[in-house]
Formats: sequence, C-alpha cells, structure tokens
Amino acid sequence: MAKDFPTRAENYSQWYNDLVIKADLAENSAVRGCMVIKPYGYAIWEKVQAALDKMFKDTGHVNAYFPIFIPKSFFSKEASHVEGFAKECAVVTHYRLKNSPDGKGIIVDEEAKLEEELIVRPTSETIIWDTYKNWIQSYRDLPILINQWANVVRWEMRTRLFLRTAEFLWQEGHTAHATRPEAVKEAETMLHIYADFAENWMAMPVLKGVKSPAERFAGAVETYAIEALMQDGKALQAGTSHFLGQNFAKAFDVKFLSRENQLEYVWATSWGVSTRLMGALIMSHSDDNGLVLPPKLAPIQVVIVPVFKTPEQLALISETVVPIKKALESKGVSVKFDDRDTHKPGWKFAEYEFKGVPVRLTVGPRDIEQGTIEVARRDTLEKETLQIKDIENKIVHLLDAIQSNLYQRALSFRENNTFRVDSWEEFKIVLDTTGGFISAHWDGTSETEERIKEETKATIRVIPLNNMPEEGRCVYSGKPSTQRVIFARAY
Amino acid sequence: MAKDFPTRAENYSQWYNDLVIKADLAENSAVRGCMVIKPYGYAIWEKVQAALDKMFKDTGHVNAYFPIFIPKSFFSKEASHVEGFAKECAVVTHYRLKNSPDGKGIIVDEEAKLEEELIVRPTSETIIWDTYKNWIQSYRDLPILINQWANVVRWEMRTRLFLRTAEFLWQEGHTAHATRPEAVKEAETMLHIYADFAENWMAMPVLKGVKSPAERFAGAVETYAIEALMQDGKALQAGTSHFLGQNFAKAFDVKFLSRENQLEYVWATSWGVSTRLMGALIMSHSDDNGLVLPPKLAPIQVVIVPVFKTPEQLALISETVVPIKKALESKGVSVKFDDRDTHKPGWKFAEYEFKGVPVRLTVGPRDIEQGTIEVARRDTLEKETLQIKDIENKIVHLLDAIQSNLYQRALSFRENNTFRVDSWEEFKIVLDTTGGFISAHWDGTSETEERIKEETKATIRVIPLNNMPEEGRCVYSGKPSTQRVIFARAY
Repeated sequence: MAKDFPTRAENYSQWYNDLVIKADLAENSAVRGCMVIKPYGYAIWEKVQAALDKMFKDTGHVNAYFPIFIPKSFFSKEASHVEGFAKECAVVTHYRLKNSPDGKGIIVDEEAKLEEELIVRPTSETIIWDTYKNWIQSYRDLPILINQWANVVRWEMRTRLFLRTAEFLWQEGHTAHATRPEAVKEAETMLHIYADFAENWMAMPVLKGVKSPAERFAGAVETYAIEALMQDGKALQAGTSHFLGQNFAKAFDVKFLSRENQLEYVWATSWGVSTRLMGALIMSHSDDNGLVLPPKLAPIQVVIVPVFKTPEQLALISETVVPIKKALESKGVSVKFDDRDTHKPGWKFAEYEFKGVPVRLTVGPRDIEQGTIEVARRDTLEKETLQIKDIENKIVHLLDAIQSNLYQRALSFRENNTFRVDSWEEFKIVLDTTGGFISAHWDGTSETEERIKEETKATIRVIPLNNMPEEGRCVYSGKPSTQRVIFARAY
Repeated sequence: MAKDFPTRAENYSQWYNDLVIKADLAENSAVRGCMVIKPYGYAIWEKVQAALDKMFKDTGHVNAYFPIFIPKSFFSKEASHVEGFAKECAVVTHYRLKNSPDGKGIIVDEEAKLEEELIVRPTSETIIWDTYKNWIQSYRDLPILINQWANVVRWEMRTRLFLRTAEFLWQEGHTAHATRPEAVKEAETMLHIYADFAENWMAMPVLKGVKSPAERFAGAVETYAIEALMQDGKALQAGTSHFLGQNFAKAFDVKFLSRENQLEYVWATSWGVSTRLMGALIMSHSDDNGLVLPPKLAPIQVVIVPVFKTPEQLALISETVVPIKKALESKGVSVKFDDRDTHKPGWKFAEYEFKGVPVRLTVGPRDIEQGTIEVARRDTLEKETLQIKDIENKIVHLLDAIQSNLYQRALSFRENNTFRVDSWEEFKIVLDTTGGFISAHWDGTSETEERIKEETKATIRVIPLNNMPEEGRCVYSGKPSTQRVIFARAY
C-alpha cells in the first residue's frame, strides 16, 4: 500500500499528491484540471456537508438552487467583480453538435451559436442578485438567508487535487438584509460557524480575521476569513465570509421599501467553503504512514480485523465481535468488520492505517480465550490490550480522546510555528527556514503589501479579529504601524 | 394567494405552471430553460434525496463525483449513445474572457480556444467508463456500485418547470459487474427501489416494465422504467434503470480477468431519477386549491395557527401549543407554529392550504377553555374538533392516514383510467376523451409503434414486468400479438 510513498520531509508536495491518490480520495480525470472524487473521499465530503448543513439550518438558513449558467453581461454589472471573476472561465458558445460531414465523429454546429455566451458559474452573486430583485419589495421580504450546494468552475492553469481544481464542489451562502449592521453581523456569524466547524469537526485550529483590501473578494466591502497552518509551514485559507455592502444591490437595482417607507438598496453577504477543505483536512493531520482522520469526519471510525486460520476460528471470533459492532453502532459509531479471507491481517493493518481509520481492533483466538482485544489508535500508532468487558464505552471515549489530541497537536504545531518578527531580515529567514505564521507590523498600504509579496511570495493572511492595538514600525517600510498582521506563504 | 389560479378543468397546463410558481416551488431564471429551485421546492427535493440516498446505501451503493465536462470525442465512442445524446448540448469552446476594446463589457478571448470542445454532461456514462477503465483489472475489483448526485444539461427547446428544463438535478447510478445476470439483477433491483420510493414516499402508484426498443436509452440493451399516470390522463416516466450489456465496456475498452482467468468485457447498468419527480409529485395529488403533499415528503407536516386578538391571548395559546409542538417534534414530525401578528388567520389558512401542508391545527381562546383543538387535513379539506389530550398520537396517526389516502386515491384514479382496448377506433376515442393508460395488443414492430405515435402522439410506455401472455391481434395492424402493452400520451 504505502510502497513508494515519500515522507513529508523528503518531498512534501509529492507526499500530498501520492496520499490523495493512494488513499483513494480523488484522482485526476480525462478533463484537464477536473478531478474525480472517489467514494472514500466523497464519504468524507458527505460528512463535511452534513455537519455544515445542520449548522446553517440551525442558524435560520435554507437551501435553494440557482442555474449553473450566467449570462456574460451579468459579470460586467459589478465593476470590481468582473475584474476578479469573469476572466478565467468556461464559456459556453454553442448549444448543438452535429455529425461531421466526413463521417468521423461529431463537430460543433456553427448554426447553433448562442446570441449571448453563457459562463459556467465561478460564483453566483450575479445570477442570484438578478433573481433576488424579483423577490424583494419591502422590508417584510427580508432577510433572505439562502445557501446553495453546487459545483463551480474556475479555469485554473496550475491545479492540485482538492486544493485548486478547475471544477470544485462548494456551498455558497447569499443573504439579503434591510440594514448594514444586520448584514455585517451575518458575515461575522458565518465566519464563526466556519471556525467552529474547522476546530470542532476538522480538529484544525484557525485564525479568524479580515483580509487586507488587496486580498478582498471581488465586489466585497469586507472579507472575513479563517486561515489554517499546514505542516509544511504554509497557510491555507479555509473559508471566507464577505460583507458585500450595497454593491450587488446597486449593480442589479435591488431596492426595498423600509419600515420608514423609504426606498433603499438592500445589504448583502456571501460566504463559502469548498472541497478545498479536504486538502486542509488531509494536510493538517496526516503523517508519513498515510492519512490521519479526525473521528468526527471519518467514514469508518473503527475497523475490526479478525486474525484467524480456519473458518471455525473466524466463526468463534465473529460471535464476540458482531455484538461489539452492534453495540458501537447503537452508540452512533461507524464500524467495519473486515472478515474477508482474501487478504491477510497484515495487509489489512496497512490498508486501514494508510486510510486513516482512527481505531483498529484486532481479535485473535487467544484474545477470545482471555477475553481481551487489541486496540490500536491511528493518531499515535499506540497499541494496548484491553478487557472486552465494557469495550464499547472505552472505544467511545478513545474516539473523543483522538479527536481532542489531533486538535491539540495541530494547535501546538501552529503555536510553535507562529513568530513575532520585528525586522525584515528575520522575516525572510523565517520564511526560508521553518515557514509558518509571521506576526509583524505593516504600514497599512497596498504598495508595501505588494512589494513584500513580490520579494518573498508571502501575503497578509489576516488582520486578526479583536487585534490588540500596538505601536510599531512596518517590518518592510519602517513607517509607523498601529497593529501586527499575520503574514505567510499560502496555498 | 390563489387569486387568478385556474382550475384543472379550465386549463390543466396553466394550473400546473401557476401552482409551481405561486406555491414558491420554482421559477424561470434569466437563463433560457434553466430554473431557480426556491427554498420551499428545494426542501421537498432534499427529502426526496435523503430517502433515496438511504435506499441506495442500504443496498450497498456509495456516492462519488465525476467531472461536469466531457470531452467531445468521448460521445463518439458508443455508436447509439452519440445519436441519442450528443446533439442538443451546451458546448464549452473557450476558457477566457477579456475586456472589450471599446471598453464596454467583456468579450470572449479568441486566443483561449480549447483544442477539444467540452460538453456539459447530459449524462455521465462516457466519462465514468473512461474512469472505470483504470479501476478495473480483475474480478476482485467488481462489482463497482457507484451513485452520483449532480446537475446535468440537455438543451431542450420547449421547457416546463421541473418536467423539462435545460439544467436539472438528478442522481445517476453507474455500476460495473463481472457477469450478465448480476448486471441484469442490479438493473431490476434499482427499478424496484424506484417503484418502492414512488409508491411509499411519493404516494404515487407506478407501473413497472421495460421499454420497447424504440424507447430505450441510447446505448442500453434493456431499459426498465416506472410510469405514473397524471390527473390529466397523461403518463409520466418517473425513473429508468438500464441494463447496458457490454456496450460501454467495449467502447472504452474495459476488460477484467475473470475467476476463470479469462479476459472479459465488464457488464454495466445505469439508472436515474431527477427533479422531474417534483413535477410528478405535484401533478399526482394537487387540486384546485393548490399543492397537496404526501406527509412523508412535506417540509412542514403540521402547521399550528393561533387565533388571537391580544398578546395575552397569544401567550395563553402558546402555553398549550408549544408543548404540543415539542411532543410532535420528538416523534419526528416537523411542525411550524406561525404566531406572526402581521398576518391574519384567514391569510395563513389560505397560505398553508395552497402550499400543501398536510395538517393544520387551529387554536383559539375558546379551544383553550374547552381543552380542544381544530384539526384540518389538506387531502380531504375535512375539519374536526378534537380533545387536546393525547393529540400527538392522533396527529401521527392522521399523517399516516393522509399518506395512505393519497396513495389509494391516486391508485383508484389510475385504475379508473386504465382501459383494455381492442379496436383502433376505441383506442383513438380513449385518447381524445379521458386519456389514461391503454392496455392493447401490439404486433411488436417498431414500424407500427412509430405509426401509432404519428397518428395519435401515444407511445408505448411500458411492456409490464411479468406480463401475462395473451393471444390477440395488434390494435393497429391487426397482425398477431402475444401480449398487451401499455400505451399513453406522455409528458
């Protein structure tokens, strides 16, 4: 299984790619930049979806579905949006094919040219605000709190499985509000939901903050983001929530009659996370032995491997194991009992270890005699032999302990790789050695930000929420600064 | 709410369109033929998805995701598939836009032309079998039992909300098997799952059968289908399951080493249902007062409307109602307590009746005094006053009764509108009067089938499973026939 699998130290990038493919999470397809999400990877994504969907609904949101195509002219309506989004897109120009006159295959029917080209959605603000226009007349129609689970396409030139693909899956929330404070509050609420999900489900600590103007979403007044630190010292933007002001309402002429009987433009937010989270999840916890999954998002939380030589031994083991499986399942634990006789126990151990199954139980004939079971945990690779009595509760506690340990381990890593830096020399040294988050003073100008990016490829990841004011001097320009911001190289 | 809403008798087609729009299920978008599925409609679709997804998983299937784009050349690989599918499609020809030189908006960048055009998937057999090729070497890799929830695009010229749209949502199962009997069994299993779902969740009786060769899916050896009868006497194909033989394995060169160490082509099935089911659901049960939903698929199963004049009265009613709501919810019933003071009870009655909420509870001050509650059911529009004591169990039973009544009512309708016909004269009379299913002899030729379609627009909907052999003469040609088949005009 793990043959030819490089360590992280040897080649982090290759380690990631091989891991995704060899753990059966995803692979490249025949279409450049588009991935196939394989059943094991998709099962993790379904768990991500289910948890987030419940969090959205618990905060009053509902799901809907909007068209995959957007008329080209829609993108031109919001000035900064078109700059950010309408360029690298899949463009539909025709709606029919016909048999080739030479009898070889099919060709585009030039007579079936669209009057206006359609863009495969890279994000849906424009088509949604064009729709909201007809839904909103009065303050009684507000707020609108809608989310959509969908596929989107951005024609990326350099793609990597999950992290950057031409097509990806995501959710995009699009809300409409009567007042500015209400919209700002919504954008912040969703940021906190994303952070809650990242930390409590993915076991991935995140920094919460706002983006610098240069890093804002195209069309946003303020972009909130959660940023995580990967094991190679690079940052990964894991989710964003945008306060859009009245930009899209003005672009699509969406006004409402307020309580005070005034005609006003509607306030907006949008927010999204994508299959990119899968990349973050993989890179946060996995090790040189393969995938490591937090129990809350693991499709298989416990695997039971019987060690047997004869069908009689297997039957005896099954008598003990099947009730344990059922007892665990009744506690909401997903269990696989791999009793195949086509594969040896050693092969199975390697397989489930590589696929990141949090807990493995091994039961052989001697265990049955002694009333014991071997319990191996994936996060620490530790094994211990436990009495079978009350094993279900022990496993449930172990799963909680693994979830918690993965979070603490990732948090320690982040803490050990976050550096307060006060000189440009040190700034560059950190980037060229350990990487990590750099907390440094910045003069607040886009010019400085741009130069730092050009010289080091590091960008401002976030200006942390509730940042402490602190007098200082910009690490690059030496000009006065009022606060530290977080720099890093990023995915 | 129901103002300007035509009856079914006045204008069935208009009734359907108005119902979909006025019940907030869906609407047309700015993109020709593409719909917006609104939150209330999408909530029903989510219930459809959840029920089907569980049925698929309970029978060993797993979900995955394949690219939305298919290289044009893939369609030419399976000869009959290209004829059926590759024509009316959305074709992506370019991957970039640029600012227009005249400064007005954006135009397609002609330099960013794709070498090979990409088709937005109308169905995914080709891209999936191109992928399976790399997954299958030996019989140990089989079966593959994969389903995908996705959007697909077929460039339909005449569209109707849910029933026929350019973009729609669906699930498509694609399975790979080592033997022909196993693949045939899979196709039949899925047909039965679809029928089970239609009857037990949608409360919609269906005929199960196979399609005539002319009506088969492009690339299938056998197409199984479920057919339902709508209230206007037209048939609706609600789901199909295809035995694909080795056609796609041969087209994409997918072979496996059998247990007997022989290199053989893989056997395939595919099966799907779509948001078209929403149209079937709406037309099966709804009436001149609006939508009627079977309880199992209703986003709101019970609505509670308080009748009050003062905040004190509302507070008193809430004291009784909130515990009832909680008790119902603990039994898995979804309840909405509409205590808004911005709308009058009469408005709310009309609203929830139109939206098909199965049960309405009305509580006023006198009910509180008397310990009673008014219970109205949407299917029969009957009302009765019940003692509040044990109301939760009464409601749960009532929901079951409504589910069952809707099915029985639809079944009676179908039975009353299924006609054994033995003459061509009678065949045409039935079609021009009541419509409905016509059980008639057919000589088994595509020529006869085609002529009947040309003359009457009726098609063979299914050759029923387990059809009884019966000697007779074709209703059109008078030639010998061995069985009756089901004709109808169809959506």
